[in-house]
Amino acid sequence: MSELVRFGVSIGTDLLGRFDKLIESKNYANRSEAIRDLIRQNLVAEKWKSSDKETVGVISLVYDHHQRELTEALTAMQHDFGEGAVSSLHVHLDHHHCLEVIVVRGEASAVKKLADRLIGVRGVLHGGLFPTSTGNEL
Amino acid sequence: MSELVRFGVSIGTDLLGRFDKLIESKNYANRSEAIRDLIRQNLVAEKWKSSDKETVGVISLVYDHHQRELTEALTAMQHDFGEGAVSSLHVHLDHHHCLEVIVVRGEASAVKKLADRLIGVRGVLHGGLFPTSTGNEL
Amino acid sequence: MSELVRFGVSIGTDLLGRFDKLIESKNYANRSEAIRDLIRQNLVAEKWKSSDKETVGVISLVYDHHQRELTEALTAMQHDFGEGAVSSLHVHLDHHHCLEVIVVRGEASAVKKLADRLIGVRGVLHGGLFPTSTGNEL
Amino acid sequence: MSELVRFGVSIGTDLLGRFDKLIESKNYANRSEAIRDLIRQNLVAEKWKSSDKETVGVISLVYDHHQRELTEALTAMQHDFGEGAVSSLHVHLDHHHCLEVIVVRGEASAVKKLADRLIGVRGVLHGGLFPTSTGNEL
Repeated sequence: MSELVRFGVSIGTDLLGRFDKLIESKNYANRSEAIRDLIRQNLVAEKWKSSDKETVGVISLVYDHHQRELTEALTAMQHDFGEGAVSSLHVHLDHHHCLEVIVVRGEASAVKKLADRLIGVRGVLHGGLFPTSTGNEL
Repeated sequence: MSELVRFGVSIGTDLLGRFDKLIESKNYANRSEAIRDLIRQNLVAEKWKSSDKETVGVISLVYDHHQRELTEALTAMQHDFGEGAVSSLHVHLDHHHCLEVIVVRGEASAVKKLADRLIGVRGVLHGGLFPTSTGNEL
Repeated sequence: MSELVRFGVSIGTDLLGRFDKLIESKNYANRSEAIRDLIRQNLVAEKWKSSDKETVGVISLVYDHHQRELTEALTAMQHDFGEGAVSSLHVHLDHHHCLEVIVVRGEASAVKKLADRLIGVRGVLHGGLFPTSTGNEL
Repeated sequence: MSELVRFGVSIGTDLLGRFDKLIESKNYANRSEAIRDLIRQNLVAEKWKSSDKETVGVISLVYDHHQRELTEALTAMQHDFGEGAVSSLHVHLDHHHCLEVIVVRGEASAVKKLADRLIGVRGVLHGGLFPTSTGNEL
């Protein structure tokens, strides 16, 4: 964490009143915390717009594990990705369905490509990528 | 516009430095303007989460105007919506294709439903809703 | 419009049943129309991922027209963009607030950049870009 | 899995050609698989629009674990949620930063509210919710 500084924001009382209500409903401790969160979301979103920055992606996949060769295919793709495929969590949703959450680290474009490949595997029922960050620049 | 006040945000120098670079690249005049924009985006997003708040929606539709009865269907649906269908802009993209942009005012749920119906009309090739605001609460 | 062909989709009866209910609620004429729409949305989304493809963007801006020099700034930016800024629609929301909808044609990256610049203008309260298409490839 | 049936989609050869290229680039085995995926995405998105349907959410949080009382706060909130908070994965990103991925099952509105609360905790640098499904209806 770097040194803390303070800067002032000028704002209309009406807008500030509405923001205060919103951050209360979202349980924020104070305005600074809420503003810093808005800033960080903005920075992460921008980072994912460029293809070559180091990012972290959370890929979620829902599938039927009875589907032949599906688990092997998913595992092979993660291994091909190399050390960027950090770890994964497997949840049994019911007798048929699993949720697999895979944490991946790498360039934004490579992470997106891996997500596309995994979601495209036969038997994957639903999937997607949540774009987040190494935390370093936040 | 309500009275202006000023509040302070405490933040790490690193995070502030990255935010300053971002707002410069986006051409913001100063930090307050950028922060107010983040707050407003947040408020508009929340408003669209509830179904019964008055909102403004911009519905865009790309279609082939040679498609029989399409223009009539689109116009009828807008008229059915009543006075909430404020106005629309028609752009000729090429010999076949038009873009129609329709500005609608009403409860979030009603605006979404109208957008769904318009996008579902046979011959509409692409469409979507941009959720925005009457400006009143911003 | 190119020649029509027909291809078959194999699908579980349960999933098909749920899809039929969904497309009925969205007023689609038939399954083919609904499937074609899903395909087109997918193609447009992919096109916007590459920065250099020709696209159409609909930029919406809500602002207070009493703000000094705002309208001039917005107009100047659109003119700087050249012939890609096709046309615009202006809606009076109330005594203070306007909605301006600007239709722009150009490379995805250039359209995004213009949208960022317009949204960053002092006095613009809310804004955003709806990414759509020339219709050509749909 | 329910019985398989087959239905036909009529489509222009141009549009089909572009779709075939897209699904090849995404590694789909065949058109049926790609179409079923589009249908499922559509169904999951609709389900999350209603607040009272049972869903599965994947909540990702990046934070600095040196922040006092943060881990306790996150854990307490998950426990308060009851049996819906299925399990979680913890990844060490570097000396300071962690990524925690929490799988939650429950009504869409309750899952969104928990995600908002978790993201609002002081010290959480970035967070978000990926909306997915129990797989049941897919």
